[in-house]
Amino acid sequence: MTIIFYDIPSTLPGNAWSPNTWKVRYVLNYKGIAYKTEWVEYPDIEAHAKKLGIAPTSKKADGTPSYTLPAIHDTTTGAYISDSFPIVEYLEKTFPNTPSVFPAHTHGLQATFDGAFVDGALTPLFQFILPATCPKLNPRSEEYFRRTREATFGKPLEEVVPKGDAGVTEWAKFKDGLGKVDTWYAKSGGPFLLGSTVSWADLDVAAWLIWLKVVWGEESTQWKDIASWQGGRWGALIANLKQYQTVV
Amino acid sequence: MTIIFYDIPSTLPGNAWSPNTWKVRYVLNYKGIAYKTEWVEYPDIEAHAKKLGIAPTSKKADGTPSYTLPAIHDTTTGAYISDSFPIVEYLEKTFPNTPSVFPAHTHGLQATFDGAFVDGALTPLFQFILPATCPKLNPRSEEYFRRTREATFGKPLEEVVPKGDAGVTEWAKFKDGLGKVDTWYAKSGGPFLLGSTVSWADLDVAAWLIWLKVVWGEESTQWKDIASWQGGRWGALIANLKQYQTVV
Repeated sequence: MTIIFYDIPSTLPGNAWSPNTWKVRYVLNYKGIAYKTEWVEYPDIEAHAKKLGIAPTSKKADGTPSYTLPAIHDTTTGAYISDSFPIVEYLEKTFPNTPSVFPAHTHGLQATFDGAFVDGALTPLFQFILPATCPKLNPRSEEYFRRTREATFGKPLEEVVPKGDAGVTEWAKFKDGLGKVDTWYAKSGGPFLLGSTVSWADLDVAAWLIWLKVVWGEESTQWKDIASWQGGRWGALIANLKQYQTVV
Repeated sequence: MTIIFYDIPSTLPGNAWSPNTWKVRYVLNYKGIAYKTEWVEYPDIEAHAKKLGIAPTSKKADGTPSYTLPAIHDTTTGAYISDSFPIVEYLEKTFPNTPSVFPAHTHGLQATFDGAFVDGALTPLFQFILPATCPKLNPRSEEYFRRTREATFGKPLEEVVPKGDAGVTEWAKFKDGLGKVDTWYAKSGGPFLLGSTVSWADLDVAAWLIWLKVVWGEESTQWKDIASWQGGRWGALIANLKQYQTVV
């Protein structure tokens, strides 16, 4: 066993749901690196990181360190790494004989992608998916998730979801945002952003999408809607990456 | 003669200054495509576009079409194209035997770059560079530029530049933004974002930078500052692309 992968559990079948940790899980699976998941509930992440010496990834509003998942431990080298992109960079460097997610010298260009995707497409999504995510977590994580997200929004999560006409308008904005990303995909002929080659950008997009698929459920109106948009691009992307969706 | 390139003139030596038109000029020069510049003052752009049948690129605040430069006319095919990225895509398609600015199937990934660069680095810049640009334009363009930009900011351009401590803080934010872009470049070993190969992303960054260099002047405190940041990355990038900076 080489890699211990720290992820956040849920009550969903398969357990995995977090988009940020899915980015790393997809990369581990794509590269075929042996790993084992250890599940850490939200309120335990900070103590877990401090105990193992895993670095914080950002700062809280009050200036104190913020500890997040994903994180990994490489039992061969002893390294502990946190934050999805640094973890992927570590895996690229440490496992050079596995398929690269930064092919054709695109490492720097791939580094720009997650921000462009979130800003370009996901901003209107969060008000819908964060409230839907809350009840899928185990009770201790649910309490933590609700408290911290409600502090961000300044109101109960149930009041965050836009309703009526506002709901229709905001959902359409999300569709339009994904439409912009669809134009990027269309330029390379698809199904992946580099054409026929999988790269970080695709696994990044898929990690965000699979969150929606597992939280709302494959048969939900929301997922069926998303999977059908832009000629079925997003349903097809998830399907094309299905072999990298195992949870071990 | 194949391509007529429509650009906005100034009182500066070399005439060219606009970052959006520089994107196309860099690409024309890099691809070695024969072209000739026709200069169009700001208040004439709309009538010029309507007369030639050049499409608008966006909408004004009041919902009417907005006509902008760059635009090109291909005298061989008869095509008129506006907006920098669509122009570059047209040149890629129409001149397949010239060096590609979307190498290694990166067309879709390159399409995400300009937005990521502007959002990541340039937001704090505009309050400094727009007021500095105004007096470098010919009188008719200057009046148009001042009027439209002052409408955006809601105050005279002279009051837009942050002063004192605020000026220091905002300039430092711009440096930090370029620092983020520097980390992208550092990943590929440079000097270009794909390593040793020039691509759209580099010409895009250089087009923004050359605006600052020509408006403030090579010997200005501002340009010397920028050219020295991040180990001299930006001064070196412009220098490495110097052969593609001709104005014809």
